[in-house]
Amino acid sequence: MKSVQCPIPKQRYDRVMLGHGSGGTLTQSLIDEIFYPAFKNPFLQQQHDGSILPLLSQHIAFTTDSFVVSPIFFPGGNIGDLAVNGTVNDLLCCGATPLYLSAGFILEEGLLLDDLKKIVATMAKAAEKAGVTIVTGDTKVVEKGKCDGIYINTSGIGTVPSNINISPKRATEGDIIIATGFVGDHGICILSTRENLGFESEIKSDTAALRSMVVSLLSEIPDIHVLRDATRGGIASTLNEIAETAQVCIELEETQIPVRESVSAVCNLLGLDPLYVANEGVLLVIVRPEEAEHALSIIRNSPNGHDAEIIGKVVKGSPGEVYINTLFGSSRIIGRLSGEQLPRIC
Amino acid sequence: MKSVQCPIPKQRYDRVMLGHGSGGTLTQSLIDEIFYPAFKNPFLQQQHDGSILPLLSQHIAFTTDSFVVSPIFFPGGNIGDLAVNGTVNDLLCCGATPLYLSAGFILEEGLLLDDLKKIVATMAKAAEKAGVTIVTGDTKVVEKGKCDGIYINTSGIGTVPSNINISPKRATEGDIIIATGFVGDHGICILSTRENLGFESEIKSDTAALRSMVVSLLSEIPDIHVLRDATRGGIASTLNEIAETAQVCIELEETQIPVRESVSAVCNLLGLDPLYVANEGVLLVIVRPEEAEHALSIIRNSPNGHDAEIIGKVVKGSPGEVYINTLFGSSRIIGRLSGEQLPRIC
Repeated sequence: MKSVQCPIPKQRYDRVMLGHGSGGTLTQSLIDEIFYPAFKNPFLQQQHDGSILPLLSQHIAFTTDSFVVSPIFFPGGNIGDLAVNGTVNDLLCCGATPLYLSAGFILEEGLLLDDLKKIVATMAKAAEKAGVTIVTGDTKVVEKGKCDGIYINTSGIGTVPSNINISPKRATEGDIIIATGFVGDHGICILSTRENLGFESEIKSDTAALRSMVVSLLSEIPDIHVLRDATRGGIASTLNEIAETAQVCIELEETQIPVRESVSAVCNLLGLDPLYVANEGVLLVIVRPEEAEHALSIIRNSPNGHDAEIIGKVVKGSPGEVYINTLFGSSRIIGRLSGEQLPRIC
Repeated sequence: MKSVQCPIPKQRYDRVMLGHGSGGTLTQSLIDEIFYPAFKNPFLQQQHDGSILPLLSQHIAFTTDSFVVSPIFFPGGNIGDLAVNGTVNDLLCCGATPLYLSAGFILEEGLLLDDLKKIVATMAKAAEKAGVTIVTGDTKVVEKGKCDGIYINTSGIGTVPSNINISPKRATEGDIIIATGFVGDHGICILSTRENLGFESEIKSDTAALRSMVVSLLSEIPDIHVLRDATRGGIASTLNEIAETAQVCIELEETQIPVRESVSAVCNLLGLDPLYVANEGVLLVIVRPEEAEHALSIIRNSPNGHDAEIIGKVVKGSPGEVYINTLFGSSRIIGRLSGEQLPRIC
């Protein structure tokens, strides 16, 4: 007669427990059951305090971003792909080829493990799509009420070819400014989802890694002056930063700025200005005037670039100033946000 | 007669506001008034979405860690130097020369700006001491109650000389295990401070970057097998990880493990095992037996290494197992933590 072994049932959790941050068995189970299977790659399998990367023979770009978006799931994405795409876009805006990401998770006790799995799966998919590898990570758990579900930090490394010199300082009088897509979608989507305003079915986040667009642009026009993703604070804040850093004046044409009708309607309703609303898949591209049309056509032929427009130029004027020629023929200064328009948008 | 200009008073805040995370004027004021002056360096002044680093001609180590310690100030340090030292030590444990750090801040609305300044000043000092530069950063603000004052992520880059091959996989039968200092100080200090147990005057956190110790070690003994900092979960958890990764058995000698009397007393009182209590300035060094005495003497002559001891060895036995020969002549298995002993210790 065979003896029948009764297996000791492995304790299963459906939510994050404080013990998942202990560095013990539960932390290992998160790593083994959620992170490793999703991010599977030889770098992670070094099982080290960090990851040893191959020799990189070019200058390195290094960037970091923490993501605290609320809600964590929204039409068009979730905090996971947002975190991957955001850091990939920051590397692209340095003129870098994105290569490696780190992922640092802060989890709230009680977060559903199924939600974590969904987020991690989305990160893995976004990383694959963007051509980057998540090579190292960290997980902390805080007590219920000490974070809001999940916060994610991603830091990124890329290499910068020697013929590329992209910097906000290079914006020069005469340069043309292109926005690569409709502005305001992400911010309005998050706001609408968070506050249950009911526009979520129409307005989705534009979160996307713009790698293929930037690769095409830089291979044909290596001397692009500035690339910036217009995230927090929208295109208005980003252009103000550029105007100040380069000590130039920027002129925008309101009629040229691509804003979706639905976004415009919500903004009117709520008294928001779409120029200040966050984007997660829109770049500002600043090029010499003779390259503007070429750049525009490359962008429009790239994924996520179909709706690109030339929205303004760098002009003679007060250094650090951004102004807009309005629909009605007047012009007004577009300053920096002095308070907070929409918190926790990314 | 001269006209007297009455300056518009600049609005001053003494606490973090949601607007400090807007990407607008207030975010810029944090950067200009707190981060730039403290971390001042040409990389940060690129004012880019990331930082472009010099050409690195060696393999790169890349690591990340989020810090959520509570309380944020404690005897011996604060969350700021903890975040810098932690990531520097992770790089050192890869055999890397630490070079560049990123700093990602998640701030709670209402955090005192004076506290933020203190933390940032400590980070700057710790970075200088550890020989690393904070080259890129990010700040997010969440509503009151959605984080606990401040969480910090640091990611780090270092270069690994080609003759160095440190990995938990290299622990080999016969190897000797050294602990570079008293174990348990950090965890007991945090616990005592958090719970007002009254031991804070005696027990300080051991937070320290162990660069000079590791540099000395590797220059004289490049073939060190394993280096690990015994943080969360203490030396017990770290040794379990190593035993499992290398599929070896580890034997510890209880009488040899350096534990401060005060730490031992608190642990007895509270029913904690110092082997599982977090350290922030203690490495586990695993070397071939013929190099053990030499390694020990280098460590003891290094800063923070005075109290180093040989605590055990890699032995023939069940792969993945760690056991300890106790004071009383018996032996017992030291498993992994199954729950959480002390949450938010780092």
